Amino acid sequence: MSQDHPQQTDSKLDLVLERIVDVPPSLVWQAWTTPEHLKKWFTPAPWQTVDCEIDLRPGGIFRTVMRSPEGQENEGTGCILEVIPEQRLVWTGALLPGFRPAADGGGDMPFTALILLEPHGEGTKYTAIAVHRDEAGCAQHEAMGFHAGWGAALDQLVAMVKQW
Amino acid sequence: MSQDHPQQTDSKLDLVLERIVDVPPSLVWQAWTTPEHLKKWFTPAPWQTVDCEIDLRPGGIFRTVMRSPEGQENEGTGCILEVIPEQRLVWTGALLPGFRPAADGGGDMPFTALILLEPHGEGTKYTAIAVHRDEAGCAQHEAMGFHAGWGAALDQLVAMVKQW
Repeated sequence: MSQDHPQQTDSKLDLVLERIVDVPPSLVWQAWTTPEHLKKWFTPAPWQTVDCEIDLRPGGIFRTVMRSPEGQENEGTGCILEVIPEQRLVWTGALLPGFRPAADGGGDMPFTALILLEPHGEGTKYTAIAVHRDEAGCAQHEAMGFHAGWGAALDQLVAMVKQW
Repeated sequence: MSQDHPQQTDSKLDLVLERIVDVPPSLVWQAWTTPEHLKKWFTPAPWQTVDCEIDLRPGGIFRTVMRSPEGQENEGTGCILEVIPEQRLVWTGALLPGFRPAADGGGDMPFTALILLEPHGEGTKYTAIAVHRDEAGCAQHEAMGFHAGWGAALDQLVAMVKQW
């Protein structure tokens, strides 16, 4: 459980986005774990998420296809590692579905994502942690705009959920 | 659960050891998940396992140190991925504890190990699956003696448990 074993972070290797949002954990969880919902918020506009596949169990697939405004597609296939409904979702690009080690270790910037949700009043304390292999990967991800990008995506998630 | 989602294996990428042993799943589980026990059986003699660390939860450490008869030590540190007591233990060398992608993808022959236990009469149907990144890694592991080695280790496990 996340409370018993808080993720140890390393500021040189991990990126953390922590926010309080005014929608409950149950809805954030639905937005994160349902492909039809995820496609609507996962990629900051004007990029889009045009395909998504989620098999919500350890060893299951987590796959997204993003498309740039110019039509360039960027597919990522990873493996879900841990599922604690409404509390904790972990997936990695370093493994393929079925826990298979990914070719070339998952590329030059492999990371594991931890999404941690806790009730906070009527809303949610939302923590996203990207755990990298090395300092170069972490720096690259930060330079690509991790905080702005994951923050903008979260804004889109919240706006979507509020329309439900 | 293992019954709901049997691991899909690929004969070019995966190695499978399947055996019926005449000790119950509860004792096989104890032998696999308790460092003091694991050190006694994990490495076919005359090699020894001289150190072992297990934090039995997703994200926890799975670390062993093997020693050759000549004193050469071989340390491996991986990450536990899935724990279903007396049924299913999954760990990988492609991630470090905390789900961190391993340096160089976990080496030239990274694999994930699945240990699946099912009751079989008074004993256990024991299935060990090693899931590799590529055909070269699978072939290398097979040539190193996967079936003989994991089989001999299992014999040691059973002999140990029968003395309890």
